[in-house]
Amino acid sequence: MKSQIITFLIKCPDQKGILAKVTNLFYIEGFNIVSCQQYVNAKANRYYMRVRVDAEGTSISREDLEKKFLELAKPLQCEWSVYYESKRQNVAILVSHTSHCLYDLLERQREGSIDCTVKMIISNHDKLRPIADMFGIPYYYLPVTKETKREQELEIIQLLKEHDVDLVVMARYMQILSENFINHYTSQIINIHHSFLPAFQGANPYGRAYERGVKLIGATAHYATLDLDEGPIIEQDVERITHESTPKTLKQIGADIERLVLARAVKCHLQHRIIVSENRAIVFPEAGE
Amino acid sequence: MKSQIITFLIKCPDQKGILAKVTNLFYIEGFNIVSCQQYVNAKANRYYMRVRVDAEGTSISREDLEKKFLELAKPLQCEWSVYYESKRQNVAILVSHTSHCLYDLLERQREGSIDCTVKMIISNHDKLRPIADMFGIPYYYLPVTKETKREQELEIIQLLKEHDVDLVVMARYMQILSENFINHYTSQIINIHHSFLPAFQGANPYGRAYERGVKLIGATAHYATLDLDEGPIIEQDVERITHESTPKTLKQIGADIERLVLARAVKCHLQHRIIVSENRAIVFPEAGE
Amino acid sequence: MKSQIITFLIKCPDQKGILAKVTNLFYIEGFNIVSCQQYVNAKANRYYMRVRVDAEGTSISREDLEKKFLELAKPLQCEWSVYYESKRQNVAILVSHTSHCLYDLLERQREGSIDCTVKMIISNHDKLRPIADMFGIPYYYLPVTKETKREQELEIIQLLKEHDVDLVVMARYMQILSENFINHYTSQIINIHHSFLPAFQGANPYGRAYERGVKLIGATAHYATLDLDEGPIIEQDVERITHESTPKTLKQIGADIERLVLARAVKCHLQHRIIVSENRAIVFPEAGE
Amino acid sequence: MKSQIITFLIKCPDQKGILAKVTNLFYIEGFNIVSCQQYVNAKANRYYMRVRVDAEGTSISREDLEKKFLELAKPLQCEWSVYYESKRQNVAILVSHTSHCLYDLLERQREGSIDCTVKMIISNHDKLRPIADMFGIPYYYLPVTKETKREQELEIIQLLKEHDVDLVVMARYMQILSENFINHYTSQIINIHHSFLPAFQGANPYGRAYERGVKLIGATAHYATLDLDEGPIIEQDVERITHESTPKTLKQIGADIERLVLARAVKCHLQHRIIVSENRAIVFPEAGE
Repeated sequence: MKSQIITFLIKCPDQKGILAKVTNLFYIEGFNIVSCQQYVNAKANRYYMRVRVDAEGTSISREDLEKKFLELAKPLQCEWSVYYESKRQNVAILVSHTSHCLYDLLERQREGSIDCTVKMIISNHDKLRPIADMFGIPYYYLPVTKETKREQELEIIQLLKEHDVDLVVMARYMQILSENFINHYTSQIINIHHSFLPAFQGANPYGRAYERGVKLIGATAHYATLDLDEGPIIEQDVERITHESTPKTLKQIGADIERLVLARAVKCHLQHRIIVSENRAIVFPEAGE
Repeated sequence: MKSQIITFLIKCPDQKGILAKVTNLFYIEGFNIVSCQQYVNAKANRYYMRVRVDAEGTSISREDLEKKFLELAKPLQCEWSVYYESKRQNVAILVSHTSHCLYDLLERQREGSIDCTVKMIISNHDKLRPIADMFGIPYYYLPVTKETKREQELEIIQLLKEHDVDLVVMARYMQILSENFINHYTSQIINIHHSFLPAFQGANPYGRAYERGVKLIGATAHYATLDLDEGPIIEQDVERITHESTPKTLKQIGADIERLVLARAVKCHLQHRIIVSENRAIVFPEAGE
Repeated sequence: MKSQIITFLIKCPDQKGILAKVTNLFYIEGFNIVSCQQYVNAKANRYYMRVRVDAEGTSISREDLEKKFLELAKPLQCEWSVYYESKRQNVAILVSHTSHCLYDLLERQREGSIDCTVKMIISNHDKLRPIADMFGIPYYYLPVTKETKREQELEIIQLLKEHDVDLVVMARYMQILSENFINHYTSQIINIHHSFLPAFQGANPYGRAYERGVKLIGATAHYATLDLDEGPIIEQDVERITHESTPKTLKQIGADIERLVLARAVKCHLQHRIIVSENRAIVFPEAGE
Repeated sequence: MKSQIITFLIKCPDQKGILAKVTNLFYIEGFNIVSCQQYVNAKANRYYMRVRVDAEGTSISREDLEKKFLELAKPLQCEWSVYYESKRQNVAILVSHTSHCLYDLLERQREGSIDCTVKMIISNHDKLRPIADMFGIPYYYLPVTKETKREQELEIIQLLKEHDVDLVVMARYMQILSENFINHYTSQIINIHHSFLPAFQGANPYGRAYERGVKLIGATAHYATLDLDEGPIIEQDVERITHESTPKTLKQIGADIERLVLARAVKCHLQHRIIVSENRAIVFPEAGE
């Protein structure tokens, strides 16, 4: 193969020799290990690994590589997945009224700091279409009511499937996704919540932050799960506020945290740096990429 | 009077002319206004002020000053309090098993970054007595059971009264104070909670933070009120953690946040920078002091 | 007058009675003081004030108000300026190759978190014109060489004058402005430098940060002055990095700091929250606005 | 051997197979790899590794383990070092007048968050002896003048050698160490500088920070080298300040940063998490320890 980064994500019971076995396989087949990150959860006796190898100078085919890895992985009871750099990922962004996260993601994609193809923007309102037009991205306006929710979701899922979407980003999409939707995209839907969860779960977090008189506000990016605002947390951040901060300024300060936190989470996902383990997201730091 | 800083804390309904009237009084009596800080809660139509004046060169007595201020304050429906720099405040520290906040407060007091007299350390355990001895502070060991709680609290209150204590600091004191205790010291008891409230109210916040997989842990200093962990928040801070953080490292990282947050809150209180308004603490920033 | 916020910025020698005199004037003329912020530099014996008043219900004309203020200000040796909310400020953005700050400012302006009119984008390259087009802002491509610098600057100044520009934002404009240019717009040109000044003044700060092995990188927004990177600092922030951060990731992390820091500085300026005193920028916090 | 953590720190030219070879050795000898952290400097073509293994259940002697590792390391051109958990490290603290870092380190050592033996405190002044006495640590008062500097340093070095000191902490020791001293303890002397280096190198950083009007102040812990304030940076942090911050409050805010930054750096060193590579310190994060 030519130079190409291949990323393996691995989880299995902790046991002696895993690292030696995995690295040996790559060594024998002529791969250069670009980075190798591990996490041992000693309490749960679980082992997690992210390995990035460069295929330059190797002669093994994808099929054979995966077959050999499978042979190694089976007796170790590994769950694993593999990602090839040459396959660019497709992203869909779901929005409602609020534009700051949408702008931010489109900008980053265009400037190259987020590496993906934004296939479409889907919204239950027609309001943000001009932004989609500015960036030349298809915009699907799919209104929703209680009665049409099931149908609307099926339309969305069909769009996602048609366009081979790898990641769904809820950039302030103010609808709760159904069990059916989430099951189609487990650990592939990232949501941004405008509080430092688990504080202020649910609606109107800035209003409640003001009432409670907290001195910090924040935002949380997490994978969407059935339990609202309870999914694995990918990234969080906070900013200092004071008694002078009004609900209006809280929203503005919060918007800056939301964009940063969502953008970082999307980047972590696209770089295959996340392994979900039960309700915790193991997020490996960037390793020279 | 000689040079001395006098601090007024004022709250009243918002209305035209308050600032002019208050500053005029000080001007006429020859005081120099060292700092003047205000906060208008437009939503609640309430006005809050902290004024620090220097008495140098004035000839008015304390009694007359306070009388004149009262005359001014009455028609404006002001609640107010006044503090003279020359009166050093007395502090009692309540602890149980954990020593990091206690050490930190004693150190700061000794080094002069917190200006007060630590009159006593009171504990329901005898464990931390050696630290009290190191710093030469009286240590009262007052064990408590469900049955003796009322009695033990009365003992504490008597000690506080005898020693003219102005501020009670719960530096990881693992007991819930009764209504009676709190009513004796409204807005004079500062507690440190080891989470970024309102997240993880109640017991074992670090364990729960680990389980939830948050990416930030924090601490909160607040005035003790009847509702546990619900009092006015004075100060909060957080620190970044990762999936590698174990419950043990969370405690160590958290301990550093706790000490800083508690020390800052105690300092704010001792500098008369806090006005409590319902359940929010208005904390004015340092103004050149 | 109708409801309108009027902001006064004042600096003078420190002296007894300033606050009383100023607030009295507004009280007598029927203004409501919305916020009043002061700073006393005790070391330099200087006094600084920002007062915001609401004109609702007053009958005095602008001319008379300013005349009365002048009468009061003269004996106090005040330098002062006054800003009327009804006059929307005009901004010009100068750029070269880098787009992230430009996108960010245009977005914020469009979303309303920055309140101004962006009159034009001026660049010494034609590269970022498509962004101007996306947002419908006039784009002036004014290339520059050593030989044409004087002429190019005069063209810029003429454009700024024609369009009544109040604030010039150097959003990664990679040219050094001449003395003549700066003198036309003293304390009206904001520049963003991609390091936490005074560290890494001059060129290539991220490369030098990498070489030095710092654990934090940052950005600084300051008023442009004759001494490069030496102007009054308005806002700074930093982000944590590690040994894994490459010069490429430093740029990406840095870009996020740059936009935030520049946007905050522009907002402070537009809200008339800054008083420059020699080489220090006194930046008053938001007071309920 | 019984359960014991053994830490290897390795640096060598980057090459295929290193990780496989190292992990294989440990696998064959029956060690469990507790954590394995790597860093590839692609630019410089250098490879760095920190491996922690548990010796439980192995039968190989220390001598044989090190011999085998040497055989493996030689052809890879590795520089390496090995640390056995069972050997507790000895620390000496150097101080002058300022007490906050000293208190902090002694407290942490006593509470167990820093794992070492504090063998002695050495000072060029007698001022901080009472703190040494409080904590029961030997205090050596070794005054120094220009003329006696060489002699005084030799006395210190002798003390360090006699007590088998592994790490020297300059906790605000206001003397510049000579080349001879530093050569005795390369990458074993940690200094705390009270600015976010490279800003404000040299004397009086807080005063200069005030004059420059920065909005952040910081502290930097680094290994002492011949070039003053130029050694490899281990840890840095900053805190936000405002125009209201006086040189006095800068010192107090700074003191809190200094203690935290120094304590973290000392902990990193004691946990063998640092590899120095030219002038950069590679600091691996905690990995479950």
